[in-house]
Amino acid sequence: MATYVYSFDEPAPGGRELLGGKGVGLAEMTQLGIPVPAGFTITTDASRAAMSGPVPEGLDAEVDEHLARLEQSSGKRFGDPDDPLLVSVRSGAAVSMPGMMDTILNLGLNDVAVEGLARATGNARFARDSYRRLIQMYGEVVDGIDGHRFERSLADLKAKRGTSQDTDLTADDLAELIESYKRTYRDETGDEFPQDAREQLRRAVRAVFDSWENPRAQVYRRAHGIPDDIGTAVNVVQMVFGNKGDDCGTGVCFTRDPSTGEQGLYGEFLANAQGEDVVAGIRTPEPLEAMESRLPDAFRQLLDTMRRLEEHYRDIQDIEFTVEEGALYLLQTRSAKRTAAAALKAAVDMVDDGLITRDEAIARIDPAQLDQLLHPMLDPRASYAVAAQGLNASPGAACGVIVFDADTAADRGEREDVILVRWETTPDDIHGMIAAKGILTVHGGMTSHAAVVARGMGTPCVAGCEDLSLDLKARTARIGDQDLREGDVITIDGGTGRVIVGAVDLVPPRINEDFQTVLAWADDVRRLKVRANADTPDDAARAREFGAEGIGLCRTEHMFFGDERLPVMQEMIMARDEEGRRRALDRLLPMQQADFEGIFEAMAGLPVTIRLLDPPLHEFLPAPEEASEEMRARIRQLQEANPMLGTRGCRLGLQFPEIYEMQVRAIVRAARAVQDRTGDAPLVEIMHPLVGFAEELRRLRELTVAVAAEENDVEYLCGTMIELPRACIRADEIAEHADFFSFGTNDLTQTALGFSRDDAEGKFLTHYLHERVLDTNPFEHLDESGVGDLMRIAVERGRSAKESLKLGICGEHGGDPASVAFCHDLGLDYVSCSPFRVPLARLAAAQAALAERGATYVAAGG
Amino acid sequence: MATYVYSFDEPAPGGRELLGGKGVGLAEMTQLGIPVPAGFTITTDASRAAMSGPVPEGLDAEVDEHLARLEQSSGKRFGDPDDPLLVSVRSGAAVSMPGMMDTILNLGLNDVAVEGLARATGNARFARDSYRRLIQMYGEVVDGIDGHRFERSLADLKAKRGTSQDTDLTADDLAELIESYKRTYRDETGDEFPQDAREQLRRAVRAVFDSWENPRAQVYRRAHGIPDDIGTAVNVVQMVFGNKGDDCGTGVCFTRDPSTGEQGLYGEFLANAQGEDVVAGIRTPEPLEAMESRLPDAFRQLLDTMRRLEEHYRDIQDIEFTVEEGALYLLQTRSAKRTAAAALKAAVDMVDDGLITRDEAIARIDPAQLDQLLHPMLDPRASYAVAAQGLNASPGAACGVIVFDADTAADRGEREDVILVRWETTPDDIHGMIAAKGILTVHGGMTSHAAVVARGMGTPCVAGCEDLSLDLKARTARIGDQDLREGDVITIDGGTGRVIVGAVDLVPPRINEDFQTVLAWADDVRRLKVRANADTPDDAARAREFGAEGIGLCRTEHMFFGDERLPVMQEMIMARDEEGRRRALDRLLPMQQADFEGIFEAMAGLPVTIRLLDPPLHEFLPAPEEASEEMRARIRQLQEANPMLGTRGCRLGLQFPEIYEMQVRAIVRAARAVQDRTGDAPLVEIMHPLVGFAEELRRLRELTVAVAAEENDVEYLCGTMIELPRACIRADEIAEHADFFSFGTNDLTQTALGFSRDDAEGKFLTHYLHERVLDTNPFEHLDESGVGDLMRIAVERGRSAKESLKLGICGEHGGDPASVAFCHDLGLDYVSCSPFRVPLARLAAAQAALAERGATYVAAGG
Repeated sequence: MATYVYSFDEPAPGGRELLGGKGVGLAEMTQLGIPVPAGFTITTDASRAAMSGPVPEGLDAEVDEHLARLEQSSGKRFGDPDDPLLVSVRSGAAVSMPGMMDTILNLGLNDVAVEGLARATGNARFARDSYRRLIQMYGEVVDGIDGHRFERSLADLKAKRGTSQDTDLTADDLAELIESYKRTYRDETGDEFPQDAREQLRRAVRAVFDSWENPRAQVYRRAHGIPDDIGTAVNVVQMVFGNKGDDCGTGVCFTRDPSTGEQGLYGEFLANAQGEDVVAGIRTPEPLEAMESRLPDAFRQLLDTMRRLEEHYRDIQDIEFTVEEGALYLLQTRSAKRTAAAALKAAVDMVDDGLITRDEAIARIDPAQLDQLLHPMLDPRASYAVAAQGLNASPGAACGVIVFDADTAADRGEREDVILVRWETTPDDIHGMIAAKGILTVHGGMTSHAAVVARGMGTPCVAGCEDLSLDLKARTARIGDQDLREGDVITIDGGTGRVIVGAVDLVPPRINEDFQTVLAWADDVRRLKVRANADTPDDAARAREFGAEGIGLCRTEHMFFGDERLPVMQEMIMARDEEGRRRALDRLLPMQQADFEGIFEAMAGLPVTIRLLDPPLHEFLPAPEEASEEMRARIRQLQEANPMLGTRGCRLGLQFPEIYEMQVRAIVRAARAVQDRTGDAPLVEIMHPLVGFAEELRRLRELTVAVAAEENDVEYLCGTMIELPRACIRADEIAEHADFFSFGTNDLTQTALGFSRDDAEGKFLTHYLHERVLDTNPFEHLDESGVGDLMRIAVERGRSAKESLKLGICGEHGGDPASVAFCHDLGLDYVSCSPFRVPLARLAAAQAALAERGATYVAAGG
Repeated sequence: MATYVYSFDEPAPGGRELLGGKGVGLAEMTQLGIPVPAGFTITTDASRAAMSGPVPEGLDAEVDEHLARLEQSSGKRFGDPDDPLLVSVRSGAAVSMPGMMDTILNLGLNDVAVEGLARATGNARFARDSYRRLIQMYGEVVDGIDGHRFERSLADLKAKRGTSQDTDLTADDLAELIESYKRTYRDETGDEFPQDAREQLRRAVRAVFDSWENPRAQVYRRAHGIPDDIGTAVNVVQMVFGNKGDDCGTGVCFTRDPSTGEQGLYGEFLANAQGEDVVAGIRTPEPLEAMESRLPDAFRQLLDTMRRLEEHYRDIQDIEFTVEEGALYLLQTRSAKRTAAAALKAAVDMVDDGLITRDEAIARIDPAQLDQLLHPMLDPRASYAVAAQGLNASPGAACGVIVFDADTAADRGEREDVILVRWETTPDDIHGMIAAKGILTVHGGMTSHAAVVARGMGTPCVAGCEDLSLDLKARTARIGDQDLREGDVITIDGGTGRVIVGAVDLVPPRINEDFQTVLAWADDVRRLKVRANADTPDDAARAREFGAEGIGLCRTEHMFFGDERLPVMQEMIMARDEEGRRRALDRLLPMQQADFEGIFEAMAGLPVTIRLLDPPLHEFLPAPEEASEEMRARIRQLQEANPMLGTRGCRLGLQFPEIYEMQVRAIVRAARAVQDRTGDAPLVEIMHPLVGFAEELRRLRELTVAVAAEENDVEYLCGTMIELPRACIRADEIAEHADFFSFGTNDLTQTALGFSRDDAEGKFLTHYLHERVLDTNPFEHLDESGVGDLMRIAVERGRSAKESLKLGICGEHGGDPASVAFCHDLGLDYVSCSPFRVPLARLAAAQAALAERGATYVAAGG
């Protein structure tokens, strides 16, 4: 038979997963000799077993047995009418879910024992206050009684006594309150408040199990990606009391400042009080330093314990403690949630102090959290009302006046901070997008034009904000129920999708020395190279600043937009024959060449992968209602039922080879020009998109080689995106014509899963995530067992045909820490992501390398 | 060094691939002792080697050596001025390409030898006629001179002599003609006609090699799916002459009637003539029987040879022969091209005669050809002008008056044959489509509504006929440059995509006894079961007639169309909440149940796989311009960028579980009702579409089981379509929740290749096929190395998780013979295809089983 219960002082066959975070902390502290109230943990196994039925057989007997041990060690008996043993029942899952589940204190009191406790402590007020608290908590948690019922009795009594303070109530008042609470309990449940201590305990444990399924816990798990099926452990702990007198108190403290990472005292203390009093806000806690004069011995012991705990856990600890009659008890310790800046500072300091190694420091930091440091954020201390919610399309916060078109944005953007607000953006809006501090759109998902461009530029963006409507004639917007005029101020948070009317204080980005230090350590450790996706010399330069080691994806399509170019591109598309197309392409060539020269110079010495034209041609034509008759006919001709799966990528290149010929020519001429100018040959990689058949690449490579040979003897690699399932399956054949593969996991996810990202996000995928059909969004975190397995097949088959094949990834997953780890394990050579995510990817790559060596990654604040 | 040349009487290390069809026939006949002119074959290896450069080294020496042998055996010398050896040079690829490549006769003649030949044969007219033919053929083939130049000289000469017959020209006339031809040769090439026999031969061989690349051969190969890189063999054969006198002649014959398969004499004979005379149509040939009285010995020898050849090849032979001075020479034998009916009759007769086994009979028949027997066809003897060309969307020919809307079609269709002509069809047109003999649409590809519905009904359909335009107000159509009014007659051929103005005679379908006999043999041999895709009781009954062993795909979406149902379906889609949807669904339930009852009864005793609702909901709403304001809003809401990858299939079922609940309920109630009525329980298979994640199917299976349990205890299987690459990759996990998999290879091809069929066919895919980027259309023939490999992974992983998993295919590939063979090899349990293709699939499945046992499939008429 399984063992479901472990005392804090006995070894258990599992850690956090079995005992929960709180339980494992209490057990470890007990075993370290740190003062902790005695108690035991009911494992998560029991919770899981109880999920769809009764508590597992044997559990009650085990609880009884451990309770007996507790009675023995404390010298008190549970339910004793004279000097009862009191316990708390506290939830504690493997992953911290603060405040989401239930706790009941003071179990073991009843009508008789409360008076025994009064006698034993000589404190009737304390004993009765403890009992009435039990009745309330038990009633709420076990029987689901509305807490207001109890609070109203308390308020009535205080009104009768003419006071507003609980502390003004006497022991007799509390006896009256207990009677009132018991009446409430009886009215609501039809039963008397249970007098049997064991029944109280049994039902309390069951209630804590059940609290795993309460709505707020479910919502929290969904929001934090915590699985539904792991369940919670339950800790039964002997009560200690910080409210017995002046030699008592309670507090919380951190071993370092969780905001900055600075060493020093950081915490709060409340004399003669219990933890709930702090939470209830009845009395204002003092700084931790105040404890020194009140309880000097306990204070010294606390400092010593803090030091020992940090040395033991080698991480910032978040500690709860109580002092009962001068004796210190630790109630909880856990790794502290901290800001990214604090995490970095603490890590660097601990390495300096020899407390942890560099590898440990690297492993400790949550790469996703680093985003905080790379974009302005809403001040965490600010309070504001969220007016509307959209998609978190590009991280960072921005505050400014709203404008409704790109020209106005460009104009006003020179004088003040503007937020560009549009139904959706188009390539024509680009000058306004560049000028804006933030972008807000009504339509469009995570891959909409606005979202993609904004992420590339590092501009905060909220997209798909359907609660917003615009009246462009009147130049007004309606957000939720508020009407705004052009020039009114709003704030957006692209990290959460929030839109706020009015200004909110922002915290500027901080790339500090600690950050650089940790990244430098990470660079020493990682095997994966990190490149950036960048389309312009500016992007390229920024990527380099963030430590990019090349460009993994330079898209060429934006180079066909712009006032000067778009008409020529459209002329090319409208041409009746190849001759006409070539005439237009001849004029585009020098423009493309200039673009490439700028990028090559910005990336001197580092490889640059240029993807040839990918999107379907109709994307370059205006909306039908703005087009000429002739253009409308062409638009109709080019229209597709499923453009994602239509005439794009290499299919365009094969059908209109003159387009790719022009692009290859522009690339090699640019490379030559830069080489002549600077003396250094750019490292050019020419990439053909959307290849599914080896024959496609064979022909395009032939085209590439032929054009390059016509021009000059620049060196280059020729390769392909792997973004179709068939390309993965036949990677062996394709590899014969490729120097490199770059996994385009955005499109590969779309095709392998049959998910159109535009149609999935905000629609069925949102439903899937909400209903937990899927645990994570496969466009954010690589679907490792599906898409990832296709990649694995592609890597195996590609390398089997060509061992020297260079492998990378340029989908957005290249900037997702978990996906970076997967790419490391897969044996890729590099990941490529947006410039702003390069530091994250560097850290994630180092963590993956450490994990491979057997180091375990301990999530900060977990 | 490679050997490039083999005499007909020496063994070669390869067959048809090495020697070509003609060469291998000549060699085999020689080795059987059948009289064949002496000669030798230059292999396809030489042709391939010569494709991109000069003829391979050593070839000339080998030709010389074999020529020497020929001189020895014939006792004549090549280029001899007195009695020259003459040879022909004939192409002959591994696959028959009649008339596509070039031939040159009478090589070895020159100004001197022609007179020697005249002396040696005592026939100056014959000798000079042979020489002038050589100059013309050589000029055309080797030097590319326009043949009209020579023909004009001949015509001028005949005019001068006042005759219209070549045969009226004298030997002296022909001498004058030779001079004229030589002048033409000199004028066109700047050179004299070559007098050196070896130079003639060398250049002739080169020219035949090069004729592989001529435009008509390229077009032919593209049309017949023949690879470009196999090249042609070249046969050098000693000339024999059927035009030397009355003891000479030439003819062609078949060993059985290629139209009917009947035994008996079937051929043509022309006395004192050469083969070209027959082709040129100068003289009308006599029936073969006429040869008996003219050349009785040669005739008896021919009959004997025909018998021997048929016994040897055990197939109908198509034979060319010449009689020179009483001696019979066979010039070619090959398996005869024959109609499907003839193929079947001959196969059955040969089995009866003990000439071949049943297995051989099965292996002989081209399943694709059987389509002929299942649909009306254009009379092959009819001549007509093709007015427009569309896609061959559904096979069969139809002739009737054109109508432009479904109501008119339904109305006039009761009295006369109508062809429904539409821009495109919608579900609203269904009654007109049922009433029409044929369907013609301007827009839409192979998966358009018109095409899919027509194929399902077996109605001929030409879709995507862009040369057609309609004026629905004026009720006129314009096809090419012809204006038609409603009621005018047209003919369409859905097998070729042709549209003809006016009536063309049709040949009715013939499912004769021979067909049934061969299919019964096939049923004994095959392992694969064959099911049909059928959505209605009528389809189901038809499928059974064709031998279907169940329904592999019953789509349920059409059941929501129809006057009575569509409004209710739309009400469901427009409902604001689940309650509203359930109200509408409650009304749809009895209708669906009635549909299912009809299908179960039609398929009593056989399994029926029902696919739950698959298409996106917007397909059930009207076009925006015909919708109410409220509906337009909903349409906008449901609109998708890539509907193929959007909210459809199980994604709908999970988001609106009430829809699938209703469908499952209708299915199990129908099964129960049929069981109660007939005493037999239907074999029900409930199929969930578009599953990509095991969790999707787990939940839907749970829903299915729950609803079924609420209803009654009918037995059923619960499974899924495998139509996404991810589903293949994670087939192991999915199999845990599935009783069966059915490969939906249409969608699997779309997603694995990233090809939207609607956007590919007629667009980039057509370009790919034209340019030979792809050899075959992956929607017609399964892409075995890509999609097929994904299927292989799915089969392996699925069966590894659940050995008992039932596996089938229900994509259109289920009716494609090559794909059926692939499914057999993959170890599937069944294929499912449209009812009209069931016989083909039965035969193809048997052929696959035979191939597995090592039997080789000899293509008929190959």
